[in-house]
Amino acid sequence: MNTLRVDTNETSYEVQFQSGIRKRIKEFLPRAYSNILIVTDDVVAKLYLDDVQSGLEGEGVQVASCVVPSGESSKSMEQFYRCHTAALEENLDRKSLLVALGGGMIGDLAGFVASTYMRGIDYVQVPTTILAHDSSVGGKVAINHEQGKNMIGAFHQPVAVLYDTDTLWSLPEQEWRSGMAEVIKHGLLADGQLYEQLVTHQTPFQSFDGHLLTHLLYRGVAVKSKIVKEDERENGVRSYLNLGHTLGHAIEGEAGYGEITHGEAVALGIYFALHLSERVYGSKLPLDSYTNWLHTYNYPLHKLKEYSIDVLLPWMRRDKKNEHGSIRMVLLKEVGEPALVPVEEDLIREVFLQVTEQG
Amino acid sequence: MNTLRVDTNETSYEVQFQSGIRKRIKEFLPRAYSNILIVTDDVVAKLYLDDVQSGLEGEGVQVASCVVPSGESSKSMEQFYRCHTAALEENLDRKSLLVALGGGMIGDLAGFVASTYMRGIDYVQVPTTILAHDSSVGGKVAINHEQGKNMIGAFHQPVAVLYDTDTLWSLPEQEWRSGMAEVIKHGLLADGQLYEQLVTHQTPFQSFDGHLLTHLLYRGVAVKSKIVKEDERENGVRSYLNLGHTLGHAIEGEAGYGEITHGEAVALGIYFALHLSERVYGSKLPLDSYTNWLHTYNYPLHKLKEYSIDVLLPWMRRDKKNEHGSIRMVLLKEVGEPALVPVEEDLIREVFLQVTEQG
Repeated sequence: MNTLRVDTNETSYEVQFQSGIRKRIKEFLPRAYSNILIVTDDVVAKLYLDDVQSGLEGEGVQVASCVVPSGESSKSMEQFYRCHTAALEENLDRKSLLVALGGGMIGDLAGFVASTYMRGIDYVQVPTTILAHDSSVGGKVAINHEQGKNMIGAFHQPVAVLYDTDTLWSLPEQEWRSGMAEVIKHGLLADGQLYEQLVTHQTPFQSFDGHLLTHLLYRGVAVKSKIVKEDERENGVRSYLNLGHTLGHAIEGEAGYGEITHGEAVALGIYFALHLSERVYGSKLPLDSYTNWLHTYNYPLHKLKEYSIDVLLPWMRRDKKNEHGSIRMVLLKEVGEPALVPVEEDLIREVFLQVTEQG
Repeated sequence: MNTLRVDTNETSYEVQFQSGIRKRIKEFLPRAYSNILIVTDDVVAKLYLDDVQSGLEGEGVQVASCVVPSGESSKSMEQFYRCHTAALEENLDRKSLLVALGGGMIGDLAGFVASTYMRGIDYVQVPTTILAHDSSVGGKVAINHEQGKNMIGAFHQPVAVLYDTDTLWSLPEQEWRSGMAEVIKHGLLADGQLYEQLVTHQTPFQSFDGHLLTHLLYRGVAVKSKIVKEDERENGVRSYLNLGHTLGHAIEGEAGYGEITHGEAVALGIYFALHLSERVYGSKLPLDSYTNWLHTYNYPLHKLKEYSIDVLLPWMRRDKKNEHGSIRMVLLKEVGEPALVPVEEDLIREVFLQVTEQG
């Protein structure tokens, strides 16, 4: 359970889950690179940059780094341009490598730099958060526009995803919450067993057994890579991975990036999507176990009340899944059976009011 | 001789050469689009925006425009972001269309916006210059970095290239020179007949017969599309299209974009590459007919002397074709037989000095 292969139409690469792999990246590269730029943030740099850098160095190999401020606000035009400047100043050419060392923000930013530097160079994802188990796989890279998250981006697959499980234990609780929201999402979408495994646990995330953690991440990535294989460019089933994201992105956008973590916002979005699904399909979803799970792990469910649906709707109208002016959301007919459907704004409003009065 | 098909691994589209086609774009779109954004510059907007816009409008179709300042300096992060803002404000979604109406600058800028807006939407090239016969085909899109031309970009093929020959006759002489440099380049690379046809003419470009012009453009695009089909992502033969561009880009960069047109700089670069080729291969190339052609059409060959090779070399070292720190240039063994080879800086320096003393 340590290696998982991701296949797309264009390419194929491995996701590795290994303790200490950050020090041995070189062993997992598809070929030799003479010029390498590590992109990371100032928090991660202090912890792991030396490990990664010294593991990559060798005769005739030049390794440089570009450190951006931590936080979602670095997914900006300014930091994007700064990384390009660093790559040019370090004389990276089309055969050079970028290493994305950090959480989802770094993966998105560095991946987008890699996809556009000289029209595209290789990059490796070295995720250091639980959340990045999701974003590091599948090649979606992007920066934010003032008017919407991930609006400027590309599809650009990494040449490898090297997941060092050592880097996870020291994460703050909020980061665990953020990451586990995407794991439980994968369970709800396509792996009922994974979902059950998560909601039956009551112990704090940080006291999970190492094997259990790897197992959960592996299963989450397995769901994701299967969907990506079917639909790399999100013309169909890939959009299911957006469960919880329509409202989630709206909350993130309205709160200002950084106020609430991505995964926390998605967890709230899933909560809303489950309610909406029951209403649309007249079905019974595991809302009780999901709500309990949110409470057990202190997801900020109470924050949902703080937002007016009138300020969230304009964000939702700009969602990338929308077509011909109507809001489209991922709903669940049942666990393991998602659908992407247009939803009337009146219904969104009604269910949101009902949910926040109850919540 | 009015339609040419371009095939790549991922897609296939037509290049149309037709008088007045700008008014009938709708007929050549692969499907219906409900939301369209035309990106153009302030000079072209005055001439053709109304034609294009009214030709696209119809029931249930919303057509907006984003007008940027004319000139290479609009291939900037600032204008790139501005176009994204316009696309968001006009509620473009993933099924919307961008129309690149203008010369090479607009094609590159709008194409790069299309390739990154929500991770990629459709776009149509509507070239209005001779030069754009080259840049509009093949899907290379980019903006400039302060430290290098086209450094930030992508490969993103248009869904159609609609070339309105009406728009060419009113172009200033400098624009004809700029465009014809790429046509003669295509001749040198792979179509000796096309080369001969060009150098045997002495009449001013603007007095060319319409059929002749279409014929020359068609042949130029045919060379290009054949090469793009073989190597869309420039891993091999596509780099041949860079004949004259290593020095050409250096001259453009050093002069400041806009001082000398792209094609004029490339024409000078080809002149240098032919000299270098004779030196490297000990062969005899048609330098006499090429130099005559430059003089006949007033290419600014005298400007070559104005640049010191010491200021040009740093630009050449950052060329995208380079690998492992050495400058690589496209040379000709003979007409129709290009090669991409590493060239020692000492040799570049020596031949440059020799050429500029002669020139």
